[in-house]
Formats: sequence, structure tokens, C-alpha cells
Amino acid sequence: MEEQATYGATEDGGLHRLALTEADGEIRDWFIDQLRGAGLSVRVDEFGNIFGRRKGSDPDAPPVLLGSHLDSQPNGGIYDGALGVVAALEFVRALNDDEIETTRPVEVVSWTNEEGSRFQPAMQGSGVWAGAHDIDVERAKTDDDGSTLGEALEDIGYRGDVPAEPDTEYEAYLELHIEQGPKLAAAGADVGVVTGIVGFTWGAVTFRGEADHSGPTPMRHRSDALVAAADLITAIRRIPGTLGDRTVGTAGYVHAEPNSINVIPGEATVTWGFRDPDDAVVERAYQRVLAEAEHAAEREGVDYQTEERMRAPAISFPDRPVDAVRRAADARGSQYLELVSGAGHDATHLTSVCDTGMVFAVSEGGTSHSPAEFTSWDDCYEAATVLANAALALANNTTG
Amino acid sequence: MEEQATYGATEDGGLHRLALTEADGEIRDWFIDQLRGAGLSVRVDEFGNIFGRRKGSDPDAPPVLLGSHLDSQPNGGIYDGALGVVAALEFVRALNDDEIETTRPVEVVSWTNEEGSRFQPAMQGSGVWAGAHDIDVERAKTDDDGSTLGEALEDIGYRGDVPAEPDTEYEAYLELHIEQGPKLAAAGADVGVVTGIVGFTWGAVTFRGEADHSGPTPMRHRSDALVAAADLITAIRRIPGTLGDRTVGTAGYVHAEPNSINVIPGEATVTWGFRDPDDAVVERAYQRVLAEAEHAAEREGVDYQTEERMRAPAISFPDRPVDAVRRAADARGSQYLELVSGAGHDATHLTSVCDTGMVFAVSEGGTSHSPAEFTSWDDCYEAATVLANAALALANNTTG
Repeated sequence: MEEQATYGATEDGGLHRLALTEADGEIRDWFIDQLRGAGLSVRVDEFGNIFGRRKGSDPDAPPVLLGSHLDSQPNGGIYDGALGVVAALEFVRALNDDEIETTRPVEVVSWTNEEGSRFQPAMQGSGVWAGAHDIDVERAKTDDDGSTLGEALEDIGYRGDVPAEPDTEYEAYLELHIEQGPKLAAAGADVGVVTGIVGFTWGAVTFRGEADHSGPTPMRHRSDALVAAADLITAIRRIPGTLGDRTVGTAGYVHAEPNSINVIPGEATVTWGFRDPDDAVVERAYQRVLAEAEHAAEREGVDYQTEERMRAPAISFPDRPVDAVRRAADARGSQYLELVSGAGHDATHLTSVCDTGMVFAVSEGGTSHSPAEFTSWDDCYEAATVLANAALALANNTTG
Repeated sequence: MEEQATYGATEDGGLHRLALTEADGEIRDWFIDQLRGAGLSVRVDEFGNIFGRRKGSDPDAPPVLLGSHLDSQPNGGIYDGALGVVAALEFVRALNDDEIETTRPVEVVSWTNEEGSRFQPAMQGSGVWAGAHDIDVERAKTDDDGSTLGEALEDIGYRGDVPAEPDTEYEAYLELHIEQGPKLAAAGADVGVVTGIVGFTWGAVTFRGEADHSGPTPMRHRSDALVAAADLITAIRRIPGTLGDRTVGTAGYVHAEPNSINVIPGEATVTWGFRDPDDAVVERAYQRVLAEAEHAAEREGVDYQTEERMRAPAISFPDRPVDAVRRAADARGSQYLELVSGAGHDATHLTSVCDTGMVFAVSEGGTSHSPAEFTSWDDCYEAATVLANAALALANNTTG
């Protein structure tokens, strides 16, 4: 973990390792060295996803896949993604050290561009591999400088030679990730057994009023788009409290035009994001935000337009991998909490390929996407051990 | 008016003539041709303010000064500023046509950079000339491309050779301007007699909470800076209704960080602007916005900082120029409305130099700073005639 954190390190102890940049190229070189050093057979697919396979005693059995991602957010932390990749690598090293032969092959993977900071969408490499996205469409995506993802892959030498798709059936996928939320730490848990991933709706509302001089225009003559946007931001804060226990809602983005201290805003855009483990609650949140946008526009006498940009259904992981993780935690005597992930992960896409589960490591204070992101080495070890034992059970068909 | 509107004309009938750009250089050349064509002696001061003087029968008497500005907002209208300059020019042409000799000299002026779009602050040329600003400080101001105002002045050849300050006492300054508000049109008035200019406070509040992943962070763990900003925007909309009849309040600018659909905003800035003809009301609005910022920050558990950027006292024009304008309107049988300007004008600074008054022309719908800005030729003529007759009375000491 300390070694990987030197590639793209920031001065304040964080990580700035955006997908397919030079730093990402360097960590990939390092990762492949580690995979080869552990005796794995390495392949890189055409979308840059990197796999290392360890043979099983039954070479034809569908393998167990473990991994996460090595790219980071801009000025992110050193645990998000990397901990899951390093833990998977450490699992096969431990198998080597103890000369354990598993029935099934075990694969370690690092997915291309999980974060979605430089190229959108997030979880792109796992999405392409799982068949959720067309590879040509995703390779044509551009960053802010106009470089395509395809060019960026070639620049760092990571357009691989095998197709970006499963070349065999897979038995299961397990991903260890930091929680990125405060629940484990708040409950005093050692580790998290993840039972699924919340569904969400993302979208934007644009209000259009009339830009005018802020001095001579009486209050009652105004149609102020930013006032309507503020009304909606307040509503987005309020809506979750009227829905589920675990509903969250965020207005993350706002933009006003002309955005001048001295002009009544003629246009204002605000985004919404609502998540909940229950798709029906996500739908209710969506209907509520549309209704609130209409009320806000009416009150201020402005026009408005809404656009839902993304909707993802909630995911329930199947019993088998969840049980494997739960038993591994039980066997250690770990205090675990079962929880639904509030963030999307590569595991989201893997659910369409094979049985998928996740292990969460404690995030102190719940902070992530920041240099302040922190998981103690004890908590890293705890989660990695649970991952390893769950993976071992799946690889040896001893999940009961 | 039609001729000046060709310099910097936009396709939709508006004007894009930012201060000290090439288009401003061209309109200045045109204006000096007109001044010379009317037999005036022209001077350009070191800040680019352009004056044309017509002699009086008493050459030593303090002159009467008339004018406004020729620069425009980005994609502004053709009347804002230009109408006052053209009307002043037309007054001396009418004096010439009718061979009228005034007792006092009459001067026509076009002030540099009234709009404050390319270089800040607004009303800059009149401010330097009246002694409100230091010329070296203002010449060092830069635009978004890093060019200084001093360089821009020299680029268009308008760094003049006389000091940017009054070279004599002045009897009075009169400025004709479009109202930029809806009151004259709403009252069915022909012209406005301006009795003063509102005071205002401008400032900004920055809220600082904690940026975090919008998915796994429960609502009660959030300190969302944008929610606090939205709360304040709503308060700014509400405050004027609790103060004076003529109080206005605007949140014109908002910015959130990191401003991403998927991240709880860790920082958000919003500006306030309040105006009222009564300084005590402006102060109450200021105290109210501070209190509302504190409440908003408390409710959301964020820190905040406030910064008042500008405070201008309300101005009451002296009786003499206001009476001169009122009598000129009465003498024509014009329906006039007395009103306080809701916007600042070059006249603001001139009040420290000499007796100052203003004439407002009707703004249809109150729209300005937009190509849709419109004043009918009849309304232009009406206001220009009132200006001319008021100026004539002041220039001949016949104000009673």
C-alpha cells in the first residue's frame, strides 16, 4: 500500500493518479511487475484492464476474480480502489507463501478508469468488459483537452491485445473497497459485509427567467432564475427526510448566467442526485424533484426544463458471495455490519457476469475523494483477511 | 443615434462596445468629428475622457457640463449612455442652428468606461476626473487578458494630454440617461425628473463545509456549503419586502466547489446587493444579510465569512438642477415622474464637483443591458428637449 501510494503522490499525503495519465502508466507497470513476481500469467485487454491468473487444480473450472481499480480522483486518497487491488494481490501471495493450491483458478484484476474524473462515465473499464458499454464508443470519449481515451491508452502503452470481455465463465467476483461513508466507524465495526448497491437518479434542472439590471428593477418585476434554483436546492436537502431512512439527496452543481454581482440571474442550472437501496424510493425522489422544480419555477415566474441524466437500479448481491464474506468475518470473530453500498463500484457491472460480493474496510470519519481519506493498517488487514478467506472458500467450493 | 449604433453593432440590433476596445476607439473618432463639426474646442484627458467646449459670452464663467458615456455592456443596447452623449451634442448643435449665445460656456463630455465590464470599477472615468479614484491605480487595472487599462488607452490612441481633473470650476452637470427600470413606462410618463441616486451595499458570503462523496454520506453527517448558500439566496429575495417600498436585493453570483454532480459542495460563495434611497435602510439590509448568513451557516453546520465589497451612500441632487429639469418639463407640458435612480451613473461622481441633476428617458419594459433595450424616438426627443431647456436655463442663469 505504501509503495503504490508513491505513484502520483501529492505533497499532503494524497494521490493524484487520474486514469490513463503518466502516473497511471507507472502504477500499471508496477502492478504488472507484482503480478509477474507472484507467478501469475498476465494479460491486458483492449480497454487496458489488467488481469493476472493463478492456476487452479481444475484448470477448466470457472475462476474466482478479485480486484478493484488503481486510478484516483483528482487529489484523492491512497485507499480508494488501490486497497482492493493490493488486497487481491496479497491474497495470491499468501497462497504462494503457504503453497496452497485452490481448486479453481484465482484472478486479480485492476479495472481501467473507475473514477470517471478524466473520462466519463465512471466504472468504465468494468462496464466495457461486462458488456454494459460499447468499446468503440468508450474509446472515442474525450478528456477536457480533447484527447480520446483510445489515444491516452496507446500513449501509456496499455491498449492490450486480448478482447475486453470475459474469455471464460467466472465463478464469482469479490471486491474489497473502503466504505467511503461513516457507518462502520460509527458502529465500531471491524469490517463491512456488503449486501448490495443503492440505486440512483441523477439529473439537472435549468430555470430561465429574465436577466436585468439589479438596481432599477423592482422586486415584483423580477423573474430571478437563481432564486428558483435556490428553492430547489433547499428542496433537495429536504426530500430525503420525507422518504427512506437511507435516502440521500445532493445538489452538487450550480451555475448562474450571467453570474454578475450586479445583474439579476436570467438562467440557473442545478443538478440533483438521489440514492436509495429501494428503486421505488428512487422513483419517488425523482417525482418529488420534478414537482419541486415546477413549484419553484411557478413561485418565481420562470420557465424550467428538467433532464434525467442517469438512472441506475438498486443491486442486491446474491446469497452465495455475501454468505462467503459473512462466514469469513464470523470465522475470525470480526465485528461486522451488513450494509448497502451508497456509492457505485466496479462490482456494479460484474453482477451481470457472475455472482458478485463486496467487503468494506472502515473509512475513518467516512471521508473519501480527499487526501484526508484514512483507513488504519489494522482495518486494512482485517478487510483483506476477510476477503482472502471468502475468496478461498469460493475458490475451493467450500462455501457450504 | 442610428449612426453611433453602427460602431460595435451586433446582429440582433444591440451594441457590443466595451471600453477601450477597437469599437470604442472608432466611436471616439466619430464623436470627436461631431464635436469639431459643431465648432467645439476638443480636449482629451489622460484617462481618455473627451470634452468639447462651446464658448459663452462670459468666457470666465464656470461652464455647464452635459454628457454621459459611449461604452456599452457586452451585448448591450444602443441607448444606455449613448443617448445622453448624443442629446448633449444635439443641444449645442441646436444652439448653433438658432445662433444662440449662452452666458456660460457649455461643455459636452463622454466619460471613459462607465460600464465596468472590461475594467472595474464602473463609472471609472468620471470617478478619476472627480477625484474619487487615483489615476495611476486605475490605469494599472487589468482586463481578463491581463492588458492594463493604460495600455488599452494607448492602443486606441486615447491617452490624452490634459490632466484628468476639472481645469475650472463648473456651474452644473446634467446627464440624460435611459431609466433602465419600468417606472416611467408604467406611470405613462413622458420623462423622468431624477431627484437622486439610491445608496447600496455589495458584498459576498463564502460558506465552508465539508466536500464528500454524495452517495455514502448520510444526510445528518453533511455540512453542505451550497445548501447554506441557497438559504441565503432565498433570504436575499425576502429581505427587501421587510424593509422599504423601494428596497431591492439581488444574489447575482454563485459559485460552488468542487461543483460536481456527485460531490457534496464543500464551499459556496454567493454575492449580495441591496439598494435603497435611504442610507439607514441600506444599513438595515446589510445587518439583515449578515444575520441571515449566520443563521444559514448554523442550520447547515458550516463556517462562513462575509466581505462587504462596496458601500455607496444615497445621493440627493441639489434643488437647483432638479428645479431646472422640472421647469423644463413643466414648460413643455410633459407628464413627468420624479424618481430616484436605482442604478449608479457618472452623475454620482459629479456631485462632488458641482450641482448635478439627471433626466431619465422612458425605457420600454424597463429592460437594459440587452439588445432588447428600447426607447422610442419620441421618448428620446422628449428627454433630449427637457435636457436642452434645463441646460439652457442653467447656462443663462435663468433658473429663477
